[in-house]
Amino acid sequence: MSDTYVHGYRSREQERLNDQAGALVDLLHSDTAYPRMSKVLEVACGVGAQTVMLARRSPDAQFTSIDLSEESISVARRAVDRAGFTNVSFQQSNIFDLPFESGSFDHVFVCFVLEHLAQPLEALALLKRRLKLGGTITVIEGDHGSAYFHPISAAAQAAIDCLVRLQREAGGNALIGREIYPLLVEAGFDDVRVSPRVVYVDSSRPDLVEGFTRRTFTAMIEGVREAAVARGLIEAATFDAGVRDLHRAAASDGVFNYTFFKGVARRGDVPGSPDGRTRPVAT
Amino acid sequence: MSDTYVHGYRSREQERLNDQAGALVDLLHSDTAYPRMSKVLEVACGVGAQTVMLARRSPDAQFTSIDLSEESISVARRAVDRAGFTNVSFQQSNIFDLPFESGSFDHVFVCFVLEHLAQPLEALALLKRRLKLGGTITVIEGDHGSAYFHPISAAAQAAIDCLVRLQREAGGNALIGREIYPLLVEAGFDDVRVSPRVVYVDSSRPDLVEGFTRRTFTAMIEGVREAAVARGLIEAATFDAGVRDLHRAAASDGVFNYTFFKGVARRGDVPGSPDGRTRPVAT
Repeated sequence: MSDTYVHGYRSREQERLNDQAGALVDLLHSDTAYPRMSKVLEVACGVGAQTVMLARRSPDAQFTSIDLSEESISVARRAVDRAGFTNVSFQQSNIFDLPFESGSFDHVFVCFVLEHLAQPLEALALLKRRLKLGGTITVIEGDHGSAYFHPISAAAQAAIDCLVRLQREAGGNALIGREIYPLLVEAGFDDVRVSPRVVYVDSSRPDLVEGFTRRTFTAMIEGVREAAVARGLIEAATFDAGVRDLHRAAASDGVFNYTFFKGVARRGDVPGSPDGRTRPVAT
Repeated sequence: MSDTYVHGYRSREQERLNDQAGALVDLLHSDTAYPRMSKVLEVACGVGAQTVMLARRSPDAQFTSIDLSEESISVARRAVDRAGFTNVSFQQSNIFDLPFESGSFDHVFVCFVLEHLAQPLEALALLKRRLKLGGTITVIEGDHGSAYFHPISAAAQAAIDCLVRLQREAGGNALIGREIYPLLVEAGFDDVRVSPRVVYVDSSRPDLVEGFTRRTFTAMIEGVREAAVARGLIEAATFDAGVRDLHRAAASDGVFNYTFFKGVARRGDVPGSPDGRTRPVAT
């Protein structure tokens, strides 16, 4: 993972991530539940926004949640403790240097992570080896190229493009949602199924106007203002006009659209072994 | 309606419209059914792609299908006859000069029509008056700004933008899907509910690869090549590269996304009358 997390680590960002998790839980996660006693690896748990949701939805599964940042892990641990769950253990670790044996997990859960990696394909291949045969991976990512709105605004589009560029410069890919299918296939997973999860927001859905258009998406764009202006990607006035126009899309006659993508796939055969059941798993 | 129908009237276009209807029927129409004996106005039925579907799904409703073009109506009439339905009557008519009394219909159905109108709001207001109080309107439109794909291609985006510009020059709006909610609200409808209908296509869905990415969307873009190049909107080579890249998005590791929007709303109160039931309907 890049050392530069494009959204930063400040506490406002933590609030944003928690708001986001609250507003989107059903859309993204209602079809994710893990069986009793299954071992689940949550990759790059960050401040625990998804960790608490996972522990709540699958109270009898055993989660191992890893992150690069010790600081994020302590926040996540407090969130899980506060919520009263005891089925999560945390570990500071790098995706590309996982301290787990091959075949250690029944399931792997990866949410809003691949977008920040320079080598998402390699990460998926490494995670696949940590799965038991038949185990599943769940990957959820956004795609900022899926954002469009009414009224149309070139300034708002330019502000969004700043985040896309900054994320690319940091080694990531803010448009990765649309690539989940080919990435999972190329990483060698079987039974790859990807579904779009659309957040459509008009004023008949005030919770999403506030919770998504304003406090999730627009707040995320606002979060890169300083970096975008400092890097000369955009004039400050244009950026500010763009943010105003995103808030405009949250007005009573505005509309905002964004699509997340969720992929689920299975670790099938060991390479070289037709049925995958007759050979030990290579590490 | 504009005299210039941006997609043209040739028979290849008729095939395209019929393919499209076949592939998308469930996504767009599975939740539309009209009760026995209800009177339904289908606006701008064209060659009848939706007319046959409507007649099939609501065999006991009575449809009146109108279109500007007598030629399209004869094609539509033959399609309905061939399918064996007798619950559709056709009439050549202009949306802005409807030969129906106020309150004539229980329901109005408008699919892929507003995108071609310079005055969609006025059209909705006129259609609203033809509804009985409590009657519903169903509006379905695409939004070409919702199209995105993998691999990303500037040429493909430029080719799509040609259609958007040509449609705008012809008085239409190829990005109207996102505006259905504010349009229906501003036209005075009540209980406006809009939902996105996403066509997500990867190679695990070969019917959509063929039926939507290639034969619906890419064919539609290809259809404006001549006009776009003649108008100097794009170099022929760029356009052709864009079309190739759209076909590339239909390859085994490609992905294509498009979103339609479906709005359903109700004619509520007569303006000036609180409950809408105590006054005759103004024409």
